[in-house]
Amino acid sequence: MKICIVGLGVIGGSYALALKEAGYKEVYGIDNDTETLKTAKEMGIIIEGFTSGGEILNECDVVILSLYPNSIINFIRDNEKYLKHGAVLTDATGIKESIVDKIEKCLRDDVEFVFGHPMAGREKKGILFASGEVFKGANYIITPTERTSEQAMSMIEKLAYSIGFRRVTRISPVEHDALIAFTSQLPHVLAVALINSDDEKYDTGKFIGDSYRELTRISNINGPLWTELFLHNKKNLLHCIDNFENQLDMLKKSIKENDAESLKDMFEKSSSRREMLEL
Amino acid sequence: MKICIVGLGVIGGSYALALKEAGYKEVYGIDNDTETLKTAKEMGIIIEGFTSGGEILNECDVVILSLYPNSIINFIRDNEKYLKHGAVLTDATGIKESIVDKIEKCLRDDVEFVFGHPMAGREKKGILFASGEVFKGANYIITPTERTSEQAMSMIEKLAYSIGFRRVTRISPVEHDALIAFTSQLPHVLAVALINSDDEKYDTGKFIGDSYRELTRISNINGPLWTELFLHNKKNLLHCIDNFENQLDMLKKSIKENDAESLKDMFEKSSSRREMLEL
Repeated sequence: MKICIVGLGVIGGSYALALKEAGYKEVYGIDNDTETLKTAKEMGIIIEGFTSGGEILNECDVVILSLYPNSIINFIRDNEKYLKHGAVLTDATGIKESIVDKIEKCLRDDVEFVFGHPMAGREKKGILFASGEVFKGANYIITPTERTSEQAMSMIEKLAYSIGFRRVTRISPVEHDALIAFTSQLPHVLAVALINSDDEKYDTGKFIGDSYRELTRISNINGPLWTELFLHNKKNLLHCIDNFENQLDMLKKSIKENDAESLKDMFEKSSSRREMLEL
Repeated sequence: MKICIVGLGVIGGSYALALKEAGYKEVYGIDNDTETLKTAKEMGIIIEGFTSGGEILNECDVVILSLYPNSIINFIRDNEKYLKHGAVLTDATGIKESIVDKIEKCLRDDVEFVFGHPMAGREKKGILFASGEVFKGANYIITPTERTSEQAMSMIEKLAYSIGFRRVTRISPVEHDALIAFTSQLPHVLAVALINSDDEKYDTGKFIGDSYRELTRISNINGPLWTELFLHNKKNLLHCIDNFENQLDMLKKSIKENDAESLKDMFEKSSSRREMLEL
Protein backbone atom coordinates (compact mmCIF):
# COMPACT_ATOMS: atom_id res chain seq x y z
CA MET A 1 0.00 0.00 0.00
CA LYS A 2 1.40 3.35 -1.04
CA ILE A 3 0.60 6.27 1.22
CA CYS A 4 1.09 9.96 0.53
CA ILE A 5 1.14 12.55 3.29
CA VAL A 6 0.32 16.06 2.17
CA GLY A 7 1.75 18.62 4.57
CA LEU A 8 4.72 17.46 6.64
CA GLY A 9 4.24 19.75 9.60
CA VAL A 10 4.17 18.51 13.18
CA ILE A 11 1.08 16.36 12.57
CA GLY A 12 1.93 15.17 9.05
CA GLY A 13 5.45 14.41 10.22
CA SER A 14 4.09 12.50 13.21
CA TYR A 15 1.94 10.45 10.84
CA ALA A 16 5.03 9.64 8.77
CA LEU A 17 6.98 8.61 11.89
CA ALA A 18 4.11 6.54 13.29
CA LEU A 19 3.51 4.84 9.93
CA LYS A 20 7.18 3.92 9.71
CA GLU A 21 7.12 2.47 13.23
CA ALA A 22 3.99 0.52 12.33
CA GLY A 23 5.81 -1.06 9.39
CA TYR A 24 4.42 0.89 6.43
CA LYS A 25 7.26 1.18 3.96
CA GLU A 26 5.94 3.06 0.94
CA VAL A 27 5.28 6.54 2.25
CA TYR A 28 5.68 9.67 0.14
CA GLY A 29 5.45 13.29 1.17
CA ILE A 30 4.21 16.52 -0.39
CA ASP A 31 5.16 19.85 1.19
CA ASN A 32 5.85 23.26 -0.30
CA ASP A 33 8.94 23.62 1.87
CA THR A 34 12.03 21.94 0.37
CA GLU A 35 13.87 21.97 3.70
CA THR A 36 11.02 20.01 5.28
CA LEU A 37 11.14 17.43 2.50
CA LYS A 38 14.90 17.12 2.89
CA THR A 39 14.55 16.61 6.63
CA ALA A 40 11.83 14.00 6.15
CA LYS A 41 14.01 12.07 3.72
CA GLU A 42 17.00 12.28 6.06
CA MET A 43 14.81 10.97 8.89
CA GLY A 44 13.97 8.05 6.63
CA ILE A 45 10.24 8.60 6.97
CA ILE A 46 9.45 9.24 3.30
CA ILE A 47 10.80 7.55 0.18
CA GLU A 48 10.55 10.70 -1.87
CA GLY A 49 9.27 14.23 -1.44
CA PHE A 50 7.47 16.55 -3.82
CA THR A 51 6.87 20.28 -3.56
CA SER A 52 3.43 20.03 -5.09
CA GLY A 53 0.84 17.38 -5.91
CA GLY A 54 0.65 15.88 -9.37
CA GLU A 55 1.76 12.57 -10.79
CA ILE A 56 2.86 10.93 -7.51
CA LEU A 57 -0.78 10.94 -6.37
CA ASN A 58 -1.62 8.60 -9.22
CA GLU A 59 0.34 5.85 -7.48
CA CYS A 60 -1.01 6.29 -3.96
CA ASP A 61 -3.77 4.19 -2.39
CA VAL A 62 -4.13 6.42 0.64
CA VAL A 63 -3.66 10.19 0.85
CA ILE A 64 -3.44 11.82 4.27
CA LEU A 65 -4.06 15.55 4.07
CA SER A 66 -2.48 17.35 6.98
CA LEU A 67 -3.15 20.93 5.93
CA TYR A 68 -4.86 24.01 7.35
CA PRO A 69 -8.62 24.12 6.71
CA ASN A 70 -8.36 26.84 4.08
CA SER A 71 -5.61 25.02 2.14
CA ILE A 72 -7.17 21.60 2.03
CA ILE A 73 -9.97 22.53 -0.35
CA ASN A 74 -7.57 24.24 -2.76
CA PHE A 75 -5.30 21.22 -2.74
CA ILE A 76 -8.10 18.88 -3.66
CA ARG A 77 -9.44 21.21 -6.34
CA ASP A 78 -5.98 21.38 -7.94
CA ASN A 79 -5.16 17.70 -7.61
CA GLU A 80 -8.32 15.63 -7.88
CA LYS A 81 -7.48 14.85 -11.49
CA TYR A 82 -4.23 13.12 -10.43
CA LEU A 83 -5.75 10.79 -7.84
CA LYS A 84 -5.52 7.05 -8.31
CA HIS A 85 -8.74 5.25 -9.18
CA GLY A 86 -10.21 3.96 -5.89
CA ALA A 87 -7.91 6.04 -3.70
CA VAL A 88 -8.97 6.74 -0.12
CA LEU A 89 -8.28 10.24 1.15
CA THR A 90 -8.42 11.35 4.74
CA ASP A 91 -7.59 14.52 6.66
CA ALA A 92 -6.55 15.65 10.13
CA THR A 93 -8.53 18.86 10.29
CA GLY A 94 -9.92 20.09 13.60
CA ILE A 95 -13.21 21.31 12.12
CA LYS A 96 -15.53 19.49 9.74
CA GLU A 97 -18.90 21.05 8.96
CA SER A 98 -17.56 23.97 6.94
CA ILE A 99 -15.22 21.84 4.79
CA VAL A 100 -17.06 18.54 4.30
CA ASP A 101 -19.48 19.70 1.59
CA LYS A 102 -16.90 21.78 -0.22
CA ILE A 103 -14.48 18.87 -0.37
CA GLU A 104 -17.06 16.34 -1.46
CA LYS A 105 -18.16 18.63 -4.27
CA CYS A 106 -14.64 18.58 -5.77
CA LEU A 107 -14.22 14.82 -5.51
CA ARG A 108 -14.31 12.44 -8.41
CA ASP A 109 -16.88 9.67 -8.05
CA ASP A 110 -14.23 6.94 -8.05
CA VAL A 111 -12.33 8.17 -4.98
CA GLU A 112 -13.32 8.16 -1.31
CA PHE A 113 -12.83 10.71 1.44
CA VAL A 114 -12.98 9.66 5.09
CA PHE A 115 -13.00 12.73 7.30
CA GLY A 116 -10.82 12.09 10.32
CA HIS A 117 -9.61 13.99 13.36
CA PRO A 118 -6.68 12.67 15.39
CA MET A 119 -7.22 14.13 18.87
CA ALA A 120 -3.55 14.72 19.38
CA GLY A 121 -1.59 17.86 18.91
CA ARG A 122 1.61 19.54 19.79
CA GLU A 123 2.04 23.18 20.69
CA LYS A 124 5.13 23.40 18.50
CA LYS A 125 4.89 23.43 14.72
CA GLY A 126 7.12 21.91 12.05
CA ILE A 127 8.53 18.50 11.27
CA LEU A 128 11.30 18.82 13.84
CA PHE A 129 8.68 18.51 16.59
CA ALA A 130 7.01 15.50 15.03
CA SER A 131 6.83 12.38 17.17
CA GLY A 132 5.59 8.88 16.57
CA GLU A 133 4.40 8.83 20.18
CA VAL A 134 1.84 11.60 19.90
CA PHE A 135 -0.96 9.28 18.73
CA LYS A 136 -0.34 6.53 21.28
CA GLY A 137 -3.44 6.06 23.41
CA ALA A 138 -5.23 9.01 21.84
CA ASN A 139 -8.78 9.40 20.57
CA TYR A 140 -9.52 9.40 16.85
CA ILE A 141 -12.76 10.67 15.37
CA ILE A 142 -14.32 9.80 12.04
CA THR A 143 -17.16 11.97 10.75
CA PRO A 144 -19.08 9.98 8.15
CA THR A 145 -21.25 11.64 5.53
CA GLU A 146 -23.81 10.04 3.21
CA ARG A 147 -21.07 9.58 0.66
CA THR A 148 -18.62 7.72 2.92
CA SER A 149 -18.48 3.95 2.38
CA GLU A 150 -18.17 1.47 5.20
CA GLN A 151 -15.22 -0.13 3.46
CA ALA A 152 -13.22 3.10 3.31
CA MET A 153 -14.06 3.92 6.94
CA SER A 154 -12.89 0.49 8.09
CA MET A 155 -9.65 0.98 6.25
CA ILE A 156 -8.93 4.35 7.91
CA GLU A 157 -10.06 2.94 11.27
CA LYS A 158 -7.55 0.10 10.95
CA LEU A 159 -4.86 2.52 9.93
CA ALA A 160 -5.60 4.64 13.00
CA TYR A 161 -5.41 1.65 15.38
CA SER A 162 -2.22 0.44 13.70
CA ILE A 163 -0.41 3.70 14.47
CA GLY A 164 -1.41 3.67 18.12
CA PHE A 165 -4.79 5.35 18.58
CA ARG A 166 -6.72 3.83 21.45
CA ARG A 167 -10.25 4.50 20.35
CA VAL A 168 -11.96 5.43 17.11
CA THR A 169 -15.40 7.00 17.38
CA ARG A 170 -17.83 7.91 14.60
CA ILE A 171 -19.95 11.02 14.85
CA SER A 172 -21.55 13.41 12.37
CA PRO A 173 -19.61 16.49 11.19
CA VAL A 174 -22.13 18.79 12.91
CA GLU A 175 -21.82 16.99 16.24
CA HIS A 176 -18.04 16.83 15.85
CA ASP A 177 -17.78 20.59 15.58
CA ALA A 178 -20.07 21.16 18.57
CA LEU A 179 -17.98 18.75 20.65
CA ILE A 180 -14.59 19.97 19.53
CA ALA A 181 -15.53 23.58 20.25
CA PHE A 182 -15.82 22.45 23.85
CA THR A 183 -13.07 19.84 24.26
CA SER A 184 -10.38 21.47 22.15
CA GLN A 185 -11.09 25.05 21.11
CA LEU A 186 -12.42 26.35 24.43
CA PRO A 187 -9.33 25.07 26.32
CA HIS A 188 -7.13 26.95 23.86
CA VAL A 189 -9.15 30.14 24.34
CA LEU A 190 -8.85 29.81 28.12
CA ALA A 191 -5.11 29.13 28.05
CA VAL A 192 -4.48 32.20 25.90
CA ALA A 193 -6.71 34.42 28.06
CA LEU A 194 -5.03 33.11 31.22
CA ILE A 195 -1.44 33.85 30.28
CA ASN A 196 -2.35 37.14 28.60
CA SER A 197 -4.09 38.26 31.81
CA ASP A 198 -0.81 38.13 33.73
CA ASP A 199 -0.11 41.74 34.73
CA GLU A 200 3.59 40.81 34.77
CA LYS A 201 4.36 42.76 37.93
CA TYR A 202 6.44 39.80 39.08
CA ASP A 203 8.72 37.18 37.58
CA THR A 204 5.82 34.75 37.28
CA GLY A 205 7.90 31.67 36.45
CA LYS A 206 9.29 31.59 40.00
CA PHE A 207 5.87 31.25 41.53
CA ILE A 208 4.16 28.62 39.45
CA GLY A 209 3.31 25.01 40.07
CA ASP A 210 2.08 22.27 37.77
CA SER A 211 -1.41 23.73 37.52
CA TYR A 212 -0.26 26.94 35.83
CA ARG A 213 2.22 25.02 33.67
CA GLU A 214 -0.50 22.67 32.48
CA LEU A 215 -3.17 25.30 31.95
CA THR A 216 -0.87 27.45 29.84
CA ARG A 217 1.06 24.83 27.80
CA ILE A 218 -1.28 25.26 24.82
CA SER A 219 -1.10 29.07 25.02
CA ASN A 220 2.05 28.55 22.95
CA ILE A 221 -0.15 28.23 19.93
CA ASN A 222 0.12 28.07 16.14
CA GLY A 223 -1.67 31.38 15.54
CA PRO A 224 -2.53 31.15 11.83
CA LEU A 225 -3.90 27.60 12.23
CA TRP A 226 -6.00 28.29 15.31
CA THR A 227 -7.33 31.53 13.88
CA GLU A 228 -8.75 29.49 10.99
CA LEU A 229 -10.09 26.78 13.31
CA PHE A 230 -11.82 29.31 15.59
CA LEU A 231 -13.38 31.27 12.74
CA HIS A 232 -14.56 28.13 10.95
CA ASN A 233 -16.38 27.08 14.11
CA LYS A 234 -17.42 30.45 15.41
CA LYS A 235 -21.01 29.75 16.43
CA ASN A 236 -20.19 26.63 18.44
CA LEU A 237 -17.18 28.22 20.07
CA LEU A 238 -19.05 31.35 21.13
CA HIS A 239 -21.75 29.14 22.61
CA CYS A 240 -19.13 27.25 24.64
CA ILE A 241 -17.54 30.47 25.84
CA ASP A 242 -20.97 31.63 27.01
CA ASN A 243 -21.54 28.41 28.94
CA PHE A 244 -18.11 28.73 30.48
CA GLU A 245 -18.76 32.32 31.50
CA ASN A 246 -21.97 31.28 33.25
CA GLN A 247 -20.02 28.84 35.39
CA LEU A 248 -17.31 31.39 36.04
CA ASP A 249 -19.95 33.90 37.15
CA MET A 250 -21.38 31.38 39.60
CA LEU A 251 -17.95 30.80 41.13
CA LYS A 252 -17.28 34.53 41.28
CA LYS A 253 -20.58 35.22 42.97
CA SER A 254 -19.98 32.53 45.59
CA ILE A 255 -16.50 33.88 46.34
CA LYS A 256 -17.83 37.45 46.58
CA GLU A 257 -20.59 36.40 48.96
CA ASN A 258 -18.41 34.04 51.03
CA ASP A 259 -20.81 31.28 50.07
CA ALA A 260 -18.71 28.29 51.13
CA GLU A 261 -21.55 25.82 50.62
CA SER A 262 -22.08 26.70 46.96
CA LEU A 263 -18.35 26.55 46.34
CA LYS A 264 -18.15 23.09 47.87
CA ASP A 265 -21.10 21.97 45.72
CA MET A 266 -19.40 23.17 42.56
CA PHE A 267 -16.15 21.48 43.58
CA GLU A 268 -17.97 18.23 44.23
CA LYS A 269 -19.57 18.40 40.81
CA SER A 270 -16.28 19.13 39.06
CA SER A 271 -14.45 16.42 40.99
CA SER A 272 -16.95 13.71 40.20
CA ARG A 273 -17.08 14.76 36.54
CA ARG A 274 -13.29 14.58 36.30
CA GLU A 275 -13.21 11.17 37.92
CA MET A 276 -15.82 9.85 35.47
CA LEU A 277 -14.18 11.44 32.43
CA GLU A 278 -12.17 8.53 31.11
CA LEU A 279 -13.62 5.53 32.91
CA MET B 1 17.58 16.76 63.93
CA LYS B 2 14.10 15.68 64.98
CA ILE B 3 11.29 16.73 62.69
CA CYS B 4 7.57 16.60 63.37
CA ILE B 5 5.02 16.75 60.56
CA VAL B 6 1.59 17.92 61.65
CA GLY B 7 -1.08 16.69 59.24
CA LEU B 8 -0.19 13.62 57.21
CA GLY B 9 -2.40 14.27 54.20
CA VAL B 10 -1.12 14.18 50.65
CA ILE B 11 1.30 17.06 51.24
CA GLY B 12 2.37 16.16 54.79
CA GLY B 13 2.80 12.56 53.67
CA SER B 14 4.86 13.70 50.67
CA TYR B 15 7.09 15.68 53.06
CA ALA B 16 7.59 12.55 55.16
CA LEU B 17 8.46 10.47 52.08
CA ALA B 18 10.80 13.10 50.65
CA LEU B 19 12.52 13.58 54.02
CA LYS B 20 13.10 9.86 54.31
CA GLU B 21 14.57 9.72 50.81
CA ALA B 22 16.80 12.67 51.68
CA GLY B 23 18.17 10.76 54.64
CA TYR B 24 16.35 12.36 57.57
CA LYS B 25 15.76 9.59 60.07
CA GLU B 26 13.98 11.11 63.05
CA VAL B 27 10.61 12.10 61.69
CA TYR B 28 7.43 12.02 63.80
CA GLY B 29 3.84 12.58 62.73
CA ILE B 30 0.75 14.12 64.24
CA ASP B 31 -2.64 13.47 62.66
CA ASN B 32 -6.12 13.13 64.11
CA ASP B 33 -6.77 10.05 62.00
CA THR B 34 -5.38 6.85 63.55
CA GLU B 35 -5.57 4.96 60.23
CA THR B 36 -3.33 7.60 58.63
CA LEU B 37 -0.80 7.27 61.42
CA LYS B 38 -0.85 3.49 61.11
CA THR B 39 -0.26 3.75 57.35
CA ALA B 40 2.58 6.22 57.82
CA LYS B 41 4.28 3.89 60.29
CA GLU B 42 3.82 0.91 58.00
CA MET B 43 5.33 2.94 55.15
CA GLY B 44 8.30 3.53 57.42
CA ILE B 45 8.13 7.29 57.01
CA ILE B 46 7.53 8.18 60.66
CA ILE B 47 9.05 6.72 63.81
CA GLU B 48 5.93 7.28 65.84
CA GLY B 49 2.54 8.88 65.37
CA PHE B 50 0.37 10.92 67.72
CA THR B 51 -3.28 11.87 67.41
CA SER B 52 -2.71 15.29 68.91
CA GLY B 53 0.15 17.64 69.71
CA GLY B 54 1.63 17.73 73.19
CA GLU B 55 4.83 16.30 74.67
CA ILE B 56 6.37 15.05 71.39
CA LEU B 57 6.71 18.65 70.23
CA ASN B 58 9.08 19.29 73.09
CA GLU B 59 11.67 17.06 71.40
CA CYS B 60 11.38 18.40 67.85
CA ASP B 61 13.74 20.94 66.28
CA VAL B 62 11.59 21.47 63.21
CA VAL B 63 7.80 21.34 62.99
CA ILE B 64 6.19 21.24 59.55
CA LEU B 65 2.53 22.21 59.70
CA SER B 66 0.62 20.76 56.79
CA LEU B 67 -2.89 21.78 57.80
CA TYR B 68 -5.79 23.74 56.33
CA PRO B 69 -5.55 27.51 56.92
CA ASN B 70 -8.30 27.53 59.53
CA SER B 71 -6.77 24.66 61.52
CA ILE B 72 -3.22 25.89 61.65
CA ILE B 73 -3.90 28.79 63.99
CA ASN B 74 -5.85 26.61 66.40
CA PHE B 75 -3.07 24.05 66.43
CA ILE B 76 -0.47 26.64 67.36
CA ARG B 77 -2.70 28.21 70.00
CA ASP B 78 -3.21 24.82 71.64
CA ASN B 79 0.38 23.64 71.34
CA GLU B 80 2.75 26.58 71.59
CA LYS B 81 3.41 25.73 75.22
CA TYR B 82 4.85 22.32 74.23
CA LEU B 83 7.31 23.59 71.63
CA LYS B 84 11.01 23.03 72.16
CA HIS B 85 13.11 26.07 73.01
CA GLY B 86 14.54 27.37 69.70
CA ALA B 87 12.27 25.24 67.52
CA VAL B 88 11.72 26.34 63.93
CA LEU B 89 8.17 25.95 62.63
CA THR B 90 7.11 26.15 59.03
CA ASP B 91 3.91 25.59 57.10
CA ALA B 92 2.72 24.60 53.63
CA THR B 93 -0.28 26.89 53.41
CA GLY B 94 -1.34 28.34 50.08
CA ILE B 95 -2.27 31.74 51.50
CA LYS B 96 -0.27 33.90 53.87
CA GLU B 97 -1.52 37.41 54.60
CA SER B 98 -4.56 36.37 56.61
CA ILE B 99 -2.67 33.88 58.81
CA VAL B 100 0.77 35.41 59.32
CA ASP B 101 -0.19 37.96 61.98
CA LYS B 102 -2.52 35.62 63.80
CA ILE B 103 0.15 32.93 63.99
CA GLU B 104 2.92 35.28 65.09
CA LYS B 105 0.70 36.62 67.85
CA CYS B 106 0.41 33.12 69.37
CA LEU B 107 4.13 32.36 69.18
CA ARG B 108 6.47 32.26 72.12
CA ASP B 109 9.48 34.57 71.76
CA ASP B 110 11.94 31.67 71.79
CA VAL B 111 10.56 29.85 68.75
CA GLU B 112 10.70 30.80 65.08
CA PHE B 113 8.15 30.51 62.30
CA VAL B 114 9.24 30.53 58.65
CA PHE B 115 6.22 30.81 56.40
CA GLY B 116 6.67 28.53 53.42
CA HIS B 117 4.70 27.47 50.37
CA PRO B 118 5.74 24.41 48.38
CA MET B 119 4.37 25.03 44.88
CA ALA B 120 3.44 21.43 44.41
CA GLY B 121 0.13 19.76 44.86
CA ARG B 122 -1.83 16.73 44.00
CA GLU B 123 -5.47 16.60 43.05
CA LYS B 124 -6.03 13.59 45.29
CA LYS B 125 -6.06 13.88 49.05
CA GLY B 126 -4.81 11.59 51.78
CA ILE B 127 -1.54 9.89 52.63
CA LEU B 128 -2.10 7.11 50.08
CA PHE B 129 -1.53 9.63 47.30
CA ALA B 130 1.62 11.03 48.88
CA SER B 131 4.75 10.89 46.75
CA GLY B 132 8.37 11.79 47.37
CA GLU B 133 8.56 12.93 43.74
CA VAL B 134 6.05 15.75 43.98
CA PHE B 135 8.61 18.34 45.14
CA LYS B 136 11.31 17.43 42.61
CA GLY B 137 12.11 20.45 40.46
CA ALA B 138 9.32 22.52 41.97
CA ASN B 139 9.25 26.11 43.21
CA TYR B 140 9.27 26.90 46.93
CA ILE B 141 8.30 30.27 48.34
CA ILE B 142 9.28 31.77 51.69
CA THR B 143 7.38 34.83 52.91
CA PRO B 144 9.54 36.59 55.51
CA THR B 145 8.05 38.92 58.12
CA GLU B 146 9.86 41.35 60.42
CA ARG B 147 10.03 38.64 63.01
CA THR B 148 11.68 35.97 60.78
CA SER B 149 15.41 35.50 61.35
CA GLU B 150 17.88 34.92 58.56
CA GLN B 151 19.17 31.84 60.35
CA ALA B 152 15.75 30.17 60.47
CA MET B 153 15.06 31.03 56.84
CA SER B 154 18.38 29.53 55.72
CA MET B 155 17.56 26.38 57.60
CA ILE B 156 14.19 25.96 55.93
CA GLU B 157 15.70 26.90 52.57
CA LYS B 158 18.31 24.15 52.94
CA LEU B 159 15.62 21.70 53.96
CA ALA B 160 13.61 22.61 50.83
CA TYR B 161 16.58 22.10 48.50
CA SER B 162 17.47 18.84 50.24
CA ILE B 163 14.08 17.33 49.45
CA GLY B 164 14.24 18.28 45.77
CA PHE B 165 12.90 21.79 45.29
CA ARG B 166 14.61 23.53 42.40
CA ARG B 167 14.26 27.14 43.45
CA VAL B 168 13.46 28.97 46.67
CA THR B 169 12.24 32.54 46.35
CA ARG B 170 11.52 35.06 49.10
CA ILE B 171 8.62 37.46 48.78
CA SER B 172 6.38 39.32 51.23
CA PRO B 173 3.12 37.70 52.41
CA VAL B 174 1.09 40.40 50.63
CA GLU B 175 2.88 39.88 47.32
CA HIS B 176 2.69 36.10 47.76
CA ASP B 177 -1.08 36.21 47.99
CA ALA B 178 -1.41 38.49 44.96
CA LEU B 179 0.82 36.17 42.93
CA ILE B 180 -0.72 32.93 44.08
CA ALA B 181 -4.21 34.18 43.29
CA PHE B 182 -3.02 34.31 39.70
CA THR B 183 -0.68 31.33 39.36
CA SER B 184 -2.58 28.82 41.49
CA GLN B 185 -6.09 29.88 42.47
CA LEU B 186 -7.23 31.28 39.12
CA PRO B 187 -6.22 28.06 37.27
CA HIS B 188 -8.31 26.07 39.75
CA VAL B 189 -11.29 28.38 39.21
CA LEU B 190 -10.95 27.99 35.42
CA ALA B 191 -10.62 24.21 35.55
CA VAL B 192 -13.77 23.90 37.67
CA ALA B 193 -15.73 26.29 35.46
CA LEU B 194 -14.55 24.46 32.33
CA ILE B 195 -15.63 20.97 33.31
CA ASN B 196 -18.84 22.21 34.93
CA SER B 197 -19.77 23.99 31.69
CA ASP B 198 -19.92 20.69 29.81
CA ASP B 199 -23.55 20.31 28.78
CA GLU B 200 -22.99 16.54 28.78
CA LYS B 201 -24.96 15.90 25.62
CA TYR B 202 -22.19 13.54 24.52
CA ASP B 203 -19.81 11.04 26.06
CA THR B 204 -17.13 13.71 26.35
CA GLY B 205 -14.26 11.36 27.24
CA LYS B 206 -14.28 9.91 23.73
CA PHE B 207 -13.60 13.27 22.16
CA ILE B 208 -10.83 14.74 24.25
CA GLY B 209 -7.15 15.27 23.68
CA ASP B 210 -4.34 16.27 26.01
CA SER B 211 -5.48 19.87 26.19
CA TYR B 212 -8.81 19.05 27.86
CA ARG B 213 -7.13 16.44 30.06
CA GLU B 214 -4.57 18.94 31.26
CA LEU B 215 -6.93 21.85 31.71
CA THR B 216 -9.33 19.80 33.83
CA ARG B 217 -6.92 17.67 35.91
CA ILE B 218 -7.17 20.07 38.86
CA SER B 219 -10.97 20.25 38.62
CA ASN B 220 -10.76 17.11 40.73
CA ILE B 221 -10.29 19.29 43.75
CA ASN B 222 -10.19 19.07 47.52
CA GLY B 223 -13.33 21.17 48.07
CA PRO B 224 -13.05 22.04 51.76
CA LEU B 225 -9.39 23.07 51.40
CA TRP B 226 -9.83 25.19 48.29
CA THR B 227 -12.95 26.84 49.67
CA GLU B 228 -10.82 28.08 52.56
CA LEU B 229 -7.98 29.14 50.27
CA PHE B 230 -10.31 31.07 47.94
CA LEU B 231 -12.14 32.84 50.75
CA HIS B 232 -8.92 33.75 52.56
CA ASN B 233 -7.68 35.42 49.39
CA LYS B 234 -10.93 36.76 48.06
CA LYS B 235 -9.88 40.25 47.00
CA ASN B 236 -6.84 39.11 45.03
CA LEU B 237 -8.68 36.24 43.41
CA LEU B 238 -11.62 38.39 42.30
CA HIS B 239 -9.15 40.86 40.81
CA CYS B 240 -7.48 38.05 38.83
CA ILE B 241 -10.82 36.74 37.61
CA ASP B 242 -11.66 40.26 36.38
CA ASN B 243 -8.37 40.51 34.47
CA PHE B 244 -8.97 37.10 32.97
CA GLU B 245 -12.48 38.07 31.91
CA ASN B 246 -11.15 41.13 30.13
CA GLN B 247 -8.85 38.93 28.06
CA LEU B 248 -11.63 36.45 27.40
CA ASP B 249 -13.88 39.30 26.23
CA MET B 250 -11.22 40.46 23.79
CA LEU B 251 -10.92 36.98 22.32
CA LYS B 252 -14.70 36.65 22.12
CA LYS B 253 -15.07 39.99 20.38
CA SER B 254 -12.41 39.09 17.80
CA ILE B 255 -14.06 35.76 17.09
CA LYS B 256 -17.48 37.39 16.78
CA GLU B 257 -16.16 40.02 14.38
CA ASN B 258 -13.98 37.60 12.35
CA ASP B 259 -11.02 39.75 13.33
CA ALA B 260 -8.23 37.37 12.34
CA GLU B 261 -5.49 39.96 12.84
CA SER B 262 -6.38 40.62 16.48
CA LEU B 263 -6.59 36.91 17.13
CA LYS B 264 -3.14 36.36 15.67
CA ASP B 265 -1.77 39.21 17.79
CA MET B 266 -3.18 37.67 20.95
CA PHE B 267 -1.78 34.26 20.00
CA GLU B 268 1.64 35.77 19.36
CA LYS B 269 1.58 37.42 22.76
CA SER B 270 0.51 34.24 24.54
CA SER B 271 3.08 32.14 22.66
CA SER B 272 6.01 34.39 23.46
CA ARG B 273 4.92 34.66 27.11
CA ARG B 274 4.72 30.88 27.37
CA GLU B 275 8.14 30.45 25.84
CA MET B 276 9.66 32.95 28.26
CA LEU B 277 7.88 31.51 31.30
CA GLU B 278 10.56 29.27 32.71
CA LEU B 279 13.70 30.42 30.94
